[in-house]
Amino acid sequence: MTKLTKYALPAALIALPAAGFAQEGPVPGVNASTDTVFILNSLLFLVGGFLVFWMAAGFAMLEAGLVRSKNVTMQLTKNIALFSLAAIFYYLIGYNLMYPLGTWSIDGILSGVWGPGVLESVGVTADAADDYSYASTGSDFFFQLMFCATTASIVSGTLAERIKLWPFLIFTIILTAIIYPLQASWKWGGGFLDAMGFLDFAGSTVVHSVGGWAALTGALILGPRIGKYKDGRTVPIPGSNLTLATLGTFILWLGWFGFNGGSQLAMGTVGDVADVSRIFANTNTAAAGGAIAALILTQVLYKKPDLTMVLNGALAGLVSITAEPLTPSLGAATIIGMIGGVIVVFAVPFLDKLKIDDVVGAIPVHLIAGIWGTIAVVFTNDDASLGTQLYSIVVVGVFTVVVSGAVWLILKAVMGLRVDEETEINGLDMAELGMEAYPEFSKG
Amino acid sequence: MTKLTKYALPAALIALPAAGFAQEGPVPGVNASTDTVFILNSLLFLVGGFLVFWMAAGFAMLEAGLVRSKNVTMQLTKNIALFSLAAIFYYLIGYNLMYPLGTWSIDGILSGVWGPGVLESVGVTADAADDYSYASTGSDFFFQLMFCATTASIVSGTLAERIKLWPFLIFTIILTAIIYPLQASWKWGGGFLDAMGFLDFAGSTVVHSVGGWAALTGALILGPRIGKYKDGRTVPIPGSNLTLATLGTFILWLGWFGFNGGSQLAMGTVGDVADVSRIFANTNTAAAGGAIAALILTQVLYKKPDLTMVLNGALAGLVSITAEPLTPSLGAATIIGMIGGVIVVFAVPFLDKLKIDDVVGAIPVHLIAGIWGTIAVVFTNDDASLGTQLYSIVVVGVFTVVVSGAVWLILKAVMGLRVDEETEINGLDMAELGMEAYPEFSKG
Amino acid sequence: MTKLTKYALPAALIALPAAGFAQEGPVPGVNASTDTVFILNSLLFLVGGFLVFWMAAGFAMLEAGLVRSKNVTMQLTKNIALFSLAAIFYYLIGYNLMYPLGTWSIDGILSGVWGPGVLESVGVTADAADDYSYASTGSDFFFQLMFCATTASIVSGTLAERIKLWPFLIFTIILTAIIYPLQASWKWGGGFLDAMGFLDFAGSTVVHSVGGWAALTGALILGPRIGKYKDGRTVPIPGSNLTLATLGTFILWLGWFGFNGGSQLAMGTVGDVADVSRIFANTNTAAAGGAIAALILTQVLYKKPDLTMVLNGALAGLVSITAEPLTPSLGAATIIGMIGGVIVVFAVPFLDKLKIDDVVGAIPVHLIAGIWGTIAVVFTNDDASLGTQLYSIVVVGVFTVVVSGAVWLILKAVMGLRVDEETEINGLDMAELGMEAYPEFSKG
Repeated sequence: MTKLTKYALPAALIALPAAGFAQEGPVPGVNASTDTVFILNSLLFLVGGFLVFWMAAGFAMLEAGLVRSKNVTMQLTKNIALFSLAAIFYYLIGYNLMYPLGTWSIDGILSGVWGPGVLESVGVTADAADDYSYASTGSDFFFQLMFCATTASIVSGTLAERIKLWPFLIFTIILTAIIYPLQASWKWGGGFLDAMGFLDFAGSTVVHSVGGWAALTGALILGPRIGKYKDGRTVPIPGSNLTLATLGTFILWLGWFGFNGGSQLAMGTVGDVADVSRIFANTNTAAAGGAIAALILTQVLYKKPDLTMVLNGALAGLVSITAEPLTPSLGAATIIGMIGGVIVVFAVPFLDKLKIDDVVGAIPVHLIAGIWGTIAVVFTNDDASLGTQLYSIVVVGVFTVVVSGAVWLILKAVMGLRVDEETEINGLDMAELGMEAYPEFSKG
Repeated sequence: MTKLTKYALPAALIALPAAGFAQEGPVPGVNASTDTVFILNSLLFLVGGFLVFWMAAGFAMLEAGLVRSKNVTMQLTKNIALFSLAAIFYYLIGYNLMYPLGTWSIDGILSGVWGPGVLESVGVTADAADDYSYASTGSDFFFQLMFCATTASIVSGTLAERIKLWPFLIFTIILTAIIYPLQASWKWGGGFLDAMGFLDFAGSTVVHSVGGWAALTGALILGPRIGKYKDGRTVPIPGSNLTLATLGTFILWLGWFGFNGGSQLAMGTVGDVADVSRIFANTNTAAAGGAIAALILTQVLYKKPDLTMVLNGALAGLVSITAEPLTPSLGAATIIGMIGGVIVVFAVPFLDKLKIDDVVGAIPVHLIAGIWGTIAVVFTNDDASLGTQLYSIVVVGVFTVVVSGAVWLILKAVMGLRVDEETEINGLDMAELGMEAYPEFSKG
Repeated sequence: MTKLTKYALPAALIALPAAGFAQEGPVPGVNASTDTVFILNSLLFLVGGFLVFWMAAGFAMLEAGLVRSKNVTMQLTKNIALFSLAAIFYYLIGYNLMYPLGTWSIDGILSGVWGPGVLESVGVTADAADDYSYASTGSDFFFQLMFCATTASIVSGTLAERIKLWPFLIFTIILTAIIYPLQASWKWGGGFLDAMGFLDFAGSTVVHSVGGWAALTGALILGPRIGKYKDGRTVPIPGSNLTLATLGTFILWLGWFGFNGGSQLAMGTVGDVADVSRIFANTNTAAAGGAIAALILTQVLYKKPDLTMVLNGALAGLVSITAEPLTPSLGAATIIGMIGGVIVVFAVPFLDKLKIDDVVGAIPVHLIAGIWGTIAVVFTNDDASLGTQLYSIVVVGVFTVVVSGAVWLILKAVMGLRVDEETEINGLDMAELGMEAYPEFSKG
């Protein structure tokens, strides 16, 4: 792996002098052909997309590891079902709601909302001219779908161990068909937040805080688990399998390279691939910063490092860098991630003080670190306005809380959200599913 | 992630008017250079190949989660050993048997069968002219090998908890060296099924049903586990670890993007990458459809959703779309997958009624949904003939059942297939391997 | 998947006769443009890099599976913390120490050592001329970082179940900031071993044996676990979860495609992608060879196949092929890997005879098979000198043992390396972290 030397000569030899099109950067080179640009952009979506798909498995493992074993089967069922529903309802409604007629408009929504996503304009039909020079519709749809599903994955962890399966899944449908795509269109569909100059590169707000707000609203309406808060104290309820929780964190970390890197949306020029590379490096170092901050802080505060805090610290680092993974230096990215890790260590007990029972810590990780990441953009981007960032955080937050709250309350009224007390105490697995995750291991 | 706008202008600016070669699609563009096409095709094989490799881990986790803990070490040993044997014997015999002299012929087989696969014709030797313009032999071999190994992985789950290690591994050698490559050459080696117009894009029949037929034949010869069918009833034997089973399913789902997407075999043109993208999207939605169908159906039939059915429903959706992941619309792909999910829910108890003991449900998932997927091609492909599809299913099925059956029966006569009763009751791990998978957890 | 035929015609049609630049191989073709070469090289680093990142999860799972459940939380904490520290300290010190001013020199070290890594020269600044024609700095940094982290991961397994958290983490900092980058610069930074003609393609010596030497030194200074050697006998201490160990092995196997394939360092020409493909195929078959060798050998020696030996056999096969994954034929690669598997089966009990307690077998796998792999280069490379290979093995070994030894001894003197006896017997998890990995499963 001798670095950066092997290629200097042959690359110079093959430079085609007749076909140089200066594009960006100071060195004359030969641009990739239009077909190659299209292919490489599409490839970025495909690779980024399958990495973000993998995050669905990460959430499933993280949550299965952090709930008690009597609720593991239910948590697994929710995770695979929510991803599947997201796939179907983002196709049926969400995708066209998010990108109505190219830019956001009431007309666009009205005309686009009820049409299921199609992949026809992929360079093989006559009206595909616009797309032709960019990337395939199929790859874009695949990539965008995974972001929608991630939003839904965030909610399931917070509400674990007490919410019924079907109302949760119906909420998932509303979230992925309507709530996520509608607010995402305000930024990524070219809507009013985008027009205002709101910056959210890969979705600290658009994805993570939306999932976090929906989870918070649900947690408030659902109430804490039985026995979690007793006589003014918080009773720790340890997860049943920390190996799974760690595996889930590593999976999410891996998937995040696709989440942030793919959000560059292009890889067909030297400048774009250099940006994607920088994003990979910054994403990684922010996660590392978050983990180490939580490690040191829990050692200092509690005299014992806390693995679940370290895991959530890494995740908070990832969420924090998501709003702007490109412009920070490696050092700045590390610090942004570290602050995310610090946030988690303080936010987890703070939520407990408010008796908001978040089983896996998704609200600190996705909502609070998501807000931090969205604000942090102003430190590394000259064109960012703190006012616009805050305004957008608030607008998205109010929208998500109001609509989610309405949906949760309607579901509560119509079919009930919470399992009965006996079911909760005995575990949801046997009562609701008749199946244990670990039927052979006796409980200690 | 503002969609599809960022690139429109620069892409137009860099279009090279002097070098336009219209290739497919209506918009004039600049084709990728021949080298770039070669590189991108090879890259598709490499990325697709490592994703399909990952499916070997998926099968290992799925099966380890669905057997009882006393048989987990054995199941893990079988899985890593079968993959390793597939790698070696596909190299020694299978690859050249599958692609003898470019097209299938007795001559080709006779001349090619005994020569181990070589990677020499990779653009660096004088006789590499034909390959040069397509993709590297190494990437093609790597990709094809993973399909062969997948076929073997399918068998191990069905026969778990009672088959001896070594006869199973000897069968794996025959399957990967001869049975799989020979029948695969009939379609993918340009053989008589291909000449007839048989369509099987990524192998619903060529891979999945072949694994399924071999598993079915083995299950019939081996008989059910002790205690599975008692007094005319089926006794449920729950898997020991549903988290692992879920992890395995997510891994398989991820790997399937490589399985189906890589089977486009090319990514060097706009049309090809658009097709790969469409395949990714269709593969995903078919899995989602299968999972949701099984979820709803088990809720309706049994009043309780069944996680193992949901997992197998997702897998059946994947198998169903594998014969034709490109031409269906997203909606059609979802429905094809859903029917796969429905098949699983009915086929599992049906096999039990026949006293065919399939430990992980591989026969419903890979064989029956594989047949369904192969038939479904006629609904989305004008050039498909139902007669040819059925004929090919039958030919491949008869061939696999007869040869597998002969091999199983010879192995039974020579060395015995089944562990003795005491070993089966106490678990294969201690008796055959002297090692427990979870030695510290006491059994409930 | 009809092989190698689909493309022949269109590819011939689009060959641009006017722009042919013969580069390597006998067939005239059209080279990729300089931009495309740059993008594809960077992409190789990014994909290779995320695959090697994934190996960190593999080590975590392997080690969590092979320690006793009372030490699992600690092992997970060490693994996520060591990766995070490697990320930060390779950025702060290691990267510039490894590649000082492009070639290795005292001047370079003195000027480069204290400067943190930067990603500025990525084709967007004026001084980026040299890099422009090769690959983005960000992608190179990302890829190189993962190799550094791998070296640290190797150490943690050997020293498990008895070393304190913080001295281990401080050692990790020294290893990733100084020891690894300094010796890596001798080969990959263009230093004196490189000048001598030392060949180590992807790091059998530079990565794996360095990790192994550091682990061995630590094991000697730390001493064996309580109860491991009693009355002259070795007491087997089985791992708590063989499913996790198997999952970890599959993850490492997958990641190794990036480790070895990415070490080609280029994918922008037909020759390079053909080489990457060959590396993938050879890497896979070496792992398979190692697994099968261990399977057969443990069957013959002990009458029972040993899953942990099979897993370590696969890993030893991977380490063995890492010094030269390109030039061997598939057959030679299989044999090189098989010898790695044989080494493990004999080295594990041999280390026990010396009372060197290596909890996961990292010394046989990474050090001894690493030495074997480095020597095996002479069988497949005409330009390799056995003397130079041995000299380099010794130089790197002596350096690593001396510096590691000094660091371990200083840490022992200053803060103590080993937990107290009571903590070791009760498990590190409760005493040091106050947290169990599997709190609900009662111990048998």
